[in-house]
Amino acid sequence: MRDAYHEELDSISDGLIEMARLVGSAMGRATTALLDADLALAEGVIAADNKINDMHHELENRAIDLLARQQPVATDLRIVVTSLRMSADLERCGDLARHVAKVARMRYPETAVPNDLHPIVLEMGQLAQRLVAKAGLVIATKDVDKALEMERDDDAIDTLHRELFSHLLDDRWQHGIETAVDVTLVGRYYERFADHAVSVAKRVVYLVTGEHVNDFVAGSEPAAVAE
Amino acid sequence: MRDAYHEELDSISDGLIEMARLVGSAMGRATTALLDADLALAEGVIAADNKINDMHHELENRAIDLLARQQPVATDLRIVVTSLRMSADLERCGDLARHVAKVARMRYPETAVPNDLHPIVLEMGQLAQRLVAKAGLVIATKDVDKALEMERDDDAIDTLHRELFSHLLDDRWQHGIETAVDVTLVGRYYERFADHAVSVAKRVVYLVTGEHVNDFVAGSEPAAVAE
Repeated sequence: MRDAYHEELDSISDGLIEMARLVGSAMGRATTALLDADLALAEGVIAADNKINDMHHELENRAIDLLARQQPVATDLRIVVTSLRMSADLERCGDLARHVAKVARMRYPETAVPNDLHPIVLEMGQLAQRLVAKAGLVIATKDVDKALEMERDDDAIDTLHRELFSHLLDDRWQHGIETAVDVTLVGRYYERFADHAVSVAKRVVYLVTGEHVNDFVAGSEPAAVAE
Repeated sequence: MRDAYHEELDSISDGLIEMARLVGSAMGRATTALLDADLALAEGVIAADNKINDMHHELENRAIDLLARQQPVATDLRIVVTSLRMSADLERCGDLARHVAKVARMRYPETAVPNDLHPIVLEMGQLAQRLVAKAGLVIATKDVDKALEMERDDDAIDTLHRELFSHLLDDRWQHGIETAVDVTLVGRYYERFADHAVSVAKRVVYLVTGEHVNDFVAGSEPAAVAE
């Protein structure tokens, strides 16, 4: 039998897990909309982001109410404050999925991504989705190994991002500037989405191990400008 | 004579104001480094970002300590939680200034931005710097009018961002893909920097007026994909 504080904390944690599920699904659908030039799917992702934003604000309010009513200290306090940050990370993931969907919508009925880049973008989208799914799992299970595993997945996204740029900067690029701009932005959106997902997991690692991992989102570099 | 709680809160507020000053200076120097291809200046911005990250973590810890020791409720609690968010916004501004400086460093001794785009990028950089300076002022003065004024400045940045894209997408673009990619990313960095600065001000407005302004960062759209 858990006390009121831990029951409320569990329900906030459940909310974060649900947010992770929603933004993963949003990014998966946004990627399909982008590659298939599926306007209805893109519109769906854009519309659904409001629900994610509402969940974020509701979770924030519940966390603040919890602080006010239970007055946690020490680790308990850090757990609640960290949940505020994780909610913000996940809310931002939803925005980035919406941005990808908006690129799809803007270029409809054309597809914004040239066919020869579909495999790379598809893989970036799948990895991004997998990362946030793992982040949800890490919130649920506090599995530190799983969390650290995510760094490898994130490295894989950075590698794909560089691959994307090597195509962009190849002299044989024939898709023009507008497509180069779209691909540059879309690549950035996937990279940032992944960074926020990893950030969520690192916050859990910190709570579990007490070892401070530098904030991954703050520390991340765009592949385009990484040395 | 103020009580301990409010004195500690003031010192956190002073830290946020100092962070706003530092990231504004960083973005100003990064813009100069970008337009002048000044490697030393770029290196300085990149190195100095560590200090901003450290300030962020220190402010976070002080805010959490304040929560633990003073156990504020209601408005006092929201003020402390909001300061955590403002610190995160300002820390992110520092990252974006670093990203701009890294583009400058990557293209040195060339300048990443073609001469005909210098005026637009210079103005975006100056507006971004002005926005975060105003954000610092808003934290210090709680001046709601000043905060709302910032939305106009941000609209001006979005207009410049669109102007940048109109050059990119002009058939007469002669600067090639690599430069288009650089300009696309740099434009995005300025836009995000401005969004975070406005977000800081909006958080203050909410604390002062109790009127909830939708989170500006979450709500913002990249100019490139805005309808």
